[in-house]
Amino acid sequence: MRALVKVKPGPGLELQHVPDPRPGEGEVLIRVRATSLCGTDAHIYRWDEWAQHRIHPPRIIGHELCGEVAELGPGVTSVAVGEYVAAESHLTCGICFQCRTGQAHVCKNYRVLGIDLDGSYAEQVVLPERVLWATSRDLPPELACVQEPLGNAVYAALVEDVSGRSVLINGCGPSGLFAAGVARTAGASLIIATDVSSYRLGLAKQMGVDHALDAKTESPGALSAAIRDITQGDGIDAALEMSGHPTALHLAFRSVKNGGRVSLFGIPTGPVSFDLPNEIIFKGIRVYGVTGRRLFDTWYRLAGLFKAGLDIRPVITHQFPMAEFAKGFDLIQSGQCGKVILIP
Amino acid sequence: MRALVKVKPGPGLELQHVPDPRPGEGEVLIRVRATSLCGTDAHIYRWDEWAQHRIHPPRIIGHELCGEVAELGPGVTSVAVGEYVAAESHLTCGICFQCRTGQAHVCKNYRVLGIDLDGSYAEQVVLPERVLWATSRDLPPELACVQEPLGNAVYAALVEDVSGRSVLINGCGPSGLFAAGVARTAGASLIIATDVSSYRLGLAKQMGVDHALDAKTESPGALSAAIRDITQGDGIDAALEMSGHPTALHLAFRSVKNGGRVSLFGIPTGPVSFDLPNEIIFKGIRVYGVTGRRLFDTWYRLAGLFKAGLDIRPVITHQFPMAEFAKGFDLIQSGQCGKVILIP
Amino acid sequence: MRALVKVKPGPGLELQHVPDPRPGEGEVLIRVRATSLCGTDAHIYRWDEWAQHRIHPPRIIGHELCGEVAELGPGVTSVAVGEYVAAESHLTCGICFQCRTGQAHVCKNYRVLGIDLDGSYAEQVVLPERVLWATSRDLPPELACVQEPLGNAVYAALVEDVSGRSVLINGCGPSGLFAAGVARTAGASLIIATDVSSYRLGLAKQMGVDHALDAKTESPGALSAAIRDITQGDGIDAALEMSGHPTALHLAFRSVKNGGRVSLFGIPTGPVSFDLPNEIIFKGIRVYGVTGRRLFDTWYRLAGLFKAGLDIRPVITHQFPMAEFAKGFDLIQSGQCGKVILIP
Amino acid sequence: MRALVKVKPGPGLELQHVPDPRPGEGEVLIRVRATSLCGTDAHIYRWDEWAQHRIHPPRIIGHELCGEVAELGPGVTSVAVGEYVAAESHLTCGICFQCRTGQAHVCKNYRVLGIDLDGSYAEQVVLPERVLWATSRDLPPELACVQEPLGNAVYAALVEDVSGRSVLINGCGPSGLFAAGVARTAGASLIIATDVSSYRLGLAKQMGVDHALDAKTESPGALSAAIRDITQGDGIDAALEMSGHPTALHLAFRSVKNGGRVSLFGIPTGPVSFDLPNEIIFKGIRVYGVTGRRLFDTWYRLAGLFKAGLDIRPVITHQFPMAEFAKGFDLIQSGQCGKVILIP
Repeated sequence: MRALVKVKPGPGLELQHVPDPRPGEGEVLIRVRATSLCGTDAHIYRWDEWAQHRIHPPRIIGHELCGEVAELGPGVTSVAVGEYVAAESHLTCGICFQCRTGQAHVCKNYRVLGIDLDGSYAEQVVLPERVLWATSRDLPPELACVQEPLGNAVYAALVEDVSGRSVLINGCGPSGLFAAGVARTAGASLIIATDVSSYRLGLAKQMGVDHALDAKTESPGALSAAIRDITQGDGIDAALEMSGHPTALHLAFRSVKNGGRVSLFGIPTGPVSFDLPNEIIFKGIRVYGVTGRRLFDTWYRLAGLFKAGLDIRPVITHQFPMAEFAKGFDLIQSGQCGKVILIP
Repeated sequence: MRALVKVKPGPGLELQHVPDPRPGEGEVLIRVRATSLCGTDAHIYRWDEWAQHRIHPPRIIGHELCGEVAELGPGVTSVAVGEYVAAESHLTCGICFQCRTGQAHVCKNYRVLGIDLDGSYAEQVVLPERVLWATSRDLPPELACVQEPLGNAVYAALVEDVSGRSVLINGCGPSGLFAAGVARTAGASLIIATDVSSYRLGLAKQMGVDHALDAKTESPGALSAAIRDITQGDGIDAALEMSGHPTALHLAFRSVKNGGRVSLFGIPTGPVSFDLPNEIIFKGIRVYGVTGRRLFDTWYRLAGLFKAGLDIRPVITHQFPMAEFAKGFDLIQSGQCGKVILIP
Repeated sequence: MRALVKVKPGPGLELQHVPDPRPGEGEVLIRVRATSLCGTDAHIYRWDEWAQHRIHPPRIIGHELCGEVAELGPGVTSVAVGEYVAAESHLTCGICFQCRTGQAHVCKNYRVLGIDLDGSYAEQVVLPERVLWATSRDLPPELACVQEPLGNAVYAALVEDVSGRSVLINGCGPSGLFAAGVARTAGASLIIATDVSSYRLGLAKQMGVDHALDAKTESPGALSAAIRDITQGDGIDAALEMSGHPTALHLAFRSVKNGGRVSLFGIPTGPVSFDLPNEIIFKGIRVYGVTGRRLFDTWYRLAGLFKAGLDIRPVITHQFPMAEFAKGFDLIQSGQCGKVILIP
Repeated sequence: MRALVKVKPGPGLELQHVPDPRPGEGEVLIRVRATSLCGTDAHIYRWDEWAQHRIHPPRIIGHELCGEVAELGPGVTSVAVGEYVAAESHLTCGICFQCRTGQAHVCKNYRVLGIDLDGSYAEQVVLPERVLWATSRDLPPELACVQEPLGNAVYAALVEDVSGRSVLINGCGPSGLFAAGVARTAGASLIIATDVSSYRLGLAKQMGVDHALDAKTESPGALSAAIRDITQGDGIDAALEMSGHPTALHLAFRSVKNGGRVSLFGIPTGPVSFDLPNEIIFKGIRVYGVTGRRLFDTWYRLAGLFKAGLDIRPVITHQFPMAEFAKGFDLIQSGQCGKVILIP
C-alpha cells in the first residue's frame, strides 16, 4: 500500500509503497477514507526539537482518521467488515491507576497512533478493536476523521457546563474553532474569540462567535478592556485557552470572573510566569489541565452534539489527495487554513 | 388600586379596589406590567383541599410577575425607579443552614409571594429588594413575567449538564414546555416529550422536541418500547418528570439508562409505589428533588439562555386583561393552553 | 478439589469433589484462602423465588474471596504466582456505554461470580485477570475476603463526602456495619444507626456509631423524634439505607435535611410507596441508587481507608471450615452474626 | 477600652485607650475573649510594601477572634447576649454575582475586618450580625478564635474529598498544620508534609502526618524522589500548597498524580514560572485557587470536624496578654511558633 513515511531523522515525509499491515489478535484492518493533519504531525514533518526526541523512524505518521473496516483479527466482535469507524488515538495500558478509575485519558503508559506505532497517513492501518469508534455513514469521511481533535475541544469546553454561561476562546486554530462550535451548540450565552490571524477570526465568525477580537492589532490591555465592556464588568464564566501563547494565557486568567474556570489546552513552547495570587488564588477559580479525550465519555458527547446540530464544516477548509501532503503542511505553516484533510 | 383577592374561604376570586401598598425598610413598590397564572393559583382559585389548609384569606394572590420599580423604601440601593424587574417568589429566611450554605431554594422557613403575603395579581405589589431580578426592557413584560416558572424548568433540566445528551420530558404543561426549550437551547442530542393532551404535544413540537409521544393513545408499554427504539436500546440520559402522574413517573425511571439521572419536579396528588431495585438501585441512577430555583444561580442561567437564543414564545398562548381572570382559570382547567398572562 | 455446589434446584448445597479448574487465556487460577457468606448466597442456599429464576445448577457458588495466585493462563501479566488477591465479583462486558464511560458497575451485560460462573466456595477458582485486586499480605485472608462487600459500603457512604457531616445508617447487617466504619474513618461528625436487632446494634456500637437506635422497641415516630433531637432539629446530611425495609426507607427520607442526600443500597422485597413531594421533591434532596462497586475507584478508596485506620474486625464475627457451611447459613438466618467466613 | 492601633504609617502598633465602639442597626458588640495573630497582621506590623498600599491608619487591626456577645444593635435576632461567637472576617456585599450564587468567598466588593474596619485586637469589637458564628462554650476561646484560619485549611483540604486518598502538604505554618489535622480527621490514607523548619515539622508530626520531609536539608529532587518512593511511583492524589514558595509549588505539581488535584493557598511574593504542559496540562489535573472560607459551608464543615475528633491544640503554641503583642510578632518573625494567641 501507499503511505506517508518519516523514513529517517530530518524534515519531510516520503510517499512510499510499504507492505500491507495485517491485523493480529483483537486488531482490525481499516481502509482509510480520510485522515487529517494535526499540529503534532507538522512538528514531525518539520522535525523540530520535540520530534527529534519523540519519533523513532521509520514511522508512518498520522492519527486522525475515518475508515472502513476491511478485516477482523481473531477475537474481534464489536465491529463488522464494512462499517465506518474513527479511532481514539491514545492506546491506553488498561492496568494503571488512571485506566482503572475512569481517567484513561491520562494513562501513565499510553502509546500514540502515528508516533509509537504506524499511523493513518496510509491506505490502510491496523488498530486495536478497543480504540475504534463506530461512525455513522451519514457523516462524510472528511468530517468524521476530525472527531479525534474535535474531542479535545469537546473536553476543554464541556469540562464544566457552559449552557447559559459566557465563554472566552483564546486561539482560533482548529481546536479553538471546534470549541466555538461546541460552546455555541451547548447554549453558551456569549462567545468571545481572540487570535492574531484575521483569517482565523473570520472562520471563528463563521462558527458563530459573538465577538472576534484581533490580538495582533489590539494590545493585551485593550483586549482586557473590551472583554470587560462586553461582559459589563462581570468577566467571563469559562476561559478556554487553546493557543498556548503567554499573552493569551494571561488574558484568560485576567478575564475570567471570580469563581470561574479556565481550561488549559494549548501548549506553550516554554515556561510561563504567573502572578498566582491575582490570576488564580484570590479569584478562587478552578483550572483544568485538558489533554486527549475522556475515553469514551467525550466521544459519546461529541456524537450527541452532532445530533444537536453542531456544524463543523467551516473548519474543514482544505482537502488534498495524500500525494499532495506538502501543500497541506505548507498551509498549516502559513496559518491560512482550518483543518486540512488528506484522502489516501 | 385594583387587585384579585381571595376574600374568604371558598372558590373564586374578586376583583376589588384595595389600598395602595407602601414600601417599608428595604422594600420596593412595583407597578405590575404582567403577571401569569400558575397551577398553584388554580388550586387556590378552585379552593381545593391543599388551598384550604394553606391560604388564610383575605389574600391578594399571584407570584409570577414583571413590573416597573415605582418607589424605593428606605435603604434600598440595588434598583432604581423606572427599572423593570421580575421577582423570586420565595422569601427566604437568610439564617437557616440551607440559606447559609447556598441552598436557599430549600430554606426551612421560606414564605411565598401571593400565599404568605399579598401577591402580584394587582396593579401594584411591594417586595423586598433582595428578591428582585433586574430585567432587560428588551424582554416584553408578558415574557419577563414567566421567568419564575421558567426557572423551575432551568433547574430541573440543567441540574446536570444535558449538552450532547438525550432527554425525556414527561408532562407538557408550561414547565415541561419550558424544559424542552431549555434542553434544546443547551444542546440536548435528543428530546422526547410525552403528554396526554394532543394540544400540548403540539406546543412541544413547536418548542423543538424530536418526538412527541401521546400517553393518552399509547400504553405505558408502547411508550417504553418507542423510547427504547428511538434510543436504540440505550435508554435516556436524563428524564425530567414534570407531570407528577404515576404512569409518567414509572416511565421516567424505566426509560433512563443505567447511570443516568431523573429530575423530579411534578407533584403527584397521592402516594406512588416504586419497585426500588429495578427502578433506582440496580440502575445506579441519581434522582434529584427539584423545587423552586437556585437563588440566584438559576436566574443567571436563565438570563444566559435567553442570550443563547431560548425562545419561549410558543408557550405563552393567552393574554387577558386582569378583569377577565376567570377565562384564564377556565383555560387552565381545560388544559387547552400554555401559559396564560394577565395584564393589570 | 472440594467445592460447595448447588447440585440441583432446591434448598441446600453439597460439599463435593469436582475437577480442578484450569485457567484459559487471560485467566488466573487462585487457591482460595478465605471466602465469606453473603445474603445473596443465603438466598441461593434457601432456594427462594429469586434464586429459582436466577441460578442454573449445577453451580459452585460464592463470590467474596481472598486467595493466592496459583497459576497464570496465557497472556496474563499484571499478577504473579504467589501474590494474594481479592476480586471484583462483577465481570463486566467492556463494550457497553456504561463500561466505556467509567460506569462499569452498572454494565448492561455483567455476569456475576458464583451465579453466572463457578464461584469461590471451593479450594480453587478461575478468574479473569482484569477483575483481580492485589491485596497486601498484611491483611489476613479472613479480612481481605470481605473487601467486595466492604466496597458496597464504601460506595454507599462516600458517593458524596461525609467528612464533618452527619450520617444515618439504617440496617446494621454487614453492609451497614461496614458503612459505619467507613463513615467514622472518613470523619463523619455524627453517626446514628438503627436496626431491629439488639445484637447488631451492639456490633454497631463496636464500630463506633454515636447512637444505636432500636427500631424494634421504638416506633418510627419515636425514632424520627430522637433523630430530630440529636441533630437539634436540623436533620441528617446523609442517610444510608442499608436495610431495604420500608419503615427504614421512610425514616431515611424523613430524617435527611433539606438539600441532603440518601444512598439506597438495601433491597426491598416488594414495592414501596412514597410521598414524593414531602419525602424528596420539596426537600430538594439527591438520591443515589448504589449497586456494586465503582470499578476500580471504590477498591482504591477502600485500600486507602484501611491505611487511614479503618478497622472492620468487629464485623467478622464467625469463621468455619468450609465443610461446616450449614452453621454459617443458620447464623445468617438467625441474624446473630456479622460476617461469616469459610476457610476452604 | 484598650486596643492595638496602627496609629500612623510605619512599623509597629500602639496599645491605646480608645472609645468603646457602639453597635448600629444589625450590628453586635462583642467582648473579645481571645484573638490570634495572622501572617497578614505581621505584614501590617512590619509595614511592608503590601501594608503600605492597603492600610489607612488609624486602624485597630486583628480579624481572628472569639468573644462574648455584649450588646445587640437594633434589629438583631439571631444571637443573644452572653453567647460565644467567632466571626467570618470577610464582610461581603451581598449583591454581586458571586454573593448571589453561593460564592461569597470571592465577593467582588468584600471588606476585611481589621483592615477596612476596626478589628479584634481590642477589648471589644462591633460586627454585623450576619458574619457571626455561634460557638459552643465547650471550645475554649483560645481554640475558638482560630476557626477563621482553620476554615482556610478546611476549604483547601476538602475542596475535593480526601477520605482514603493521599495528601501532600507543603508548608507547615498554622494553615498547613491545620490542613494536616483536617486531612487526618477526614481519613486521608497518607499525609506527607514538607517545610524548611525542623520546629514546624515537629509540630506536623504532632498533628499526625505520616512523613515530615525537611526541605531545608533535602534538595527538590530528593524530596520528589522520596514522595515517589513513599507512593510507590503513583504520586499524590491531592497536593495542598500552603507555603507560597516557588520550590514547594513545583514540588506540588510534580508530585501530584495524573488526574489528581492541587489546592493553591499559599501566597508567593512574586511571579512564579511554570512548565504548563508537564506540570498541569498533560497531567490532566485540577487546580483550585483557595481564598477565605465558603460562607458558611466551610464553617459548618469545621464544626463537624471538631465533633469528629479534630484536635488542633498542638498548633496553638503560645498565648500572651494583649500588652505583650510584640513578643508574638517576634515569634512569628522567627518561625518558632504555631499559632500565637492574644488575650485582651
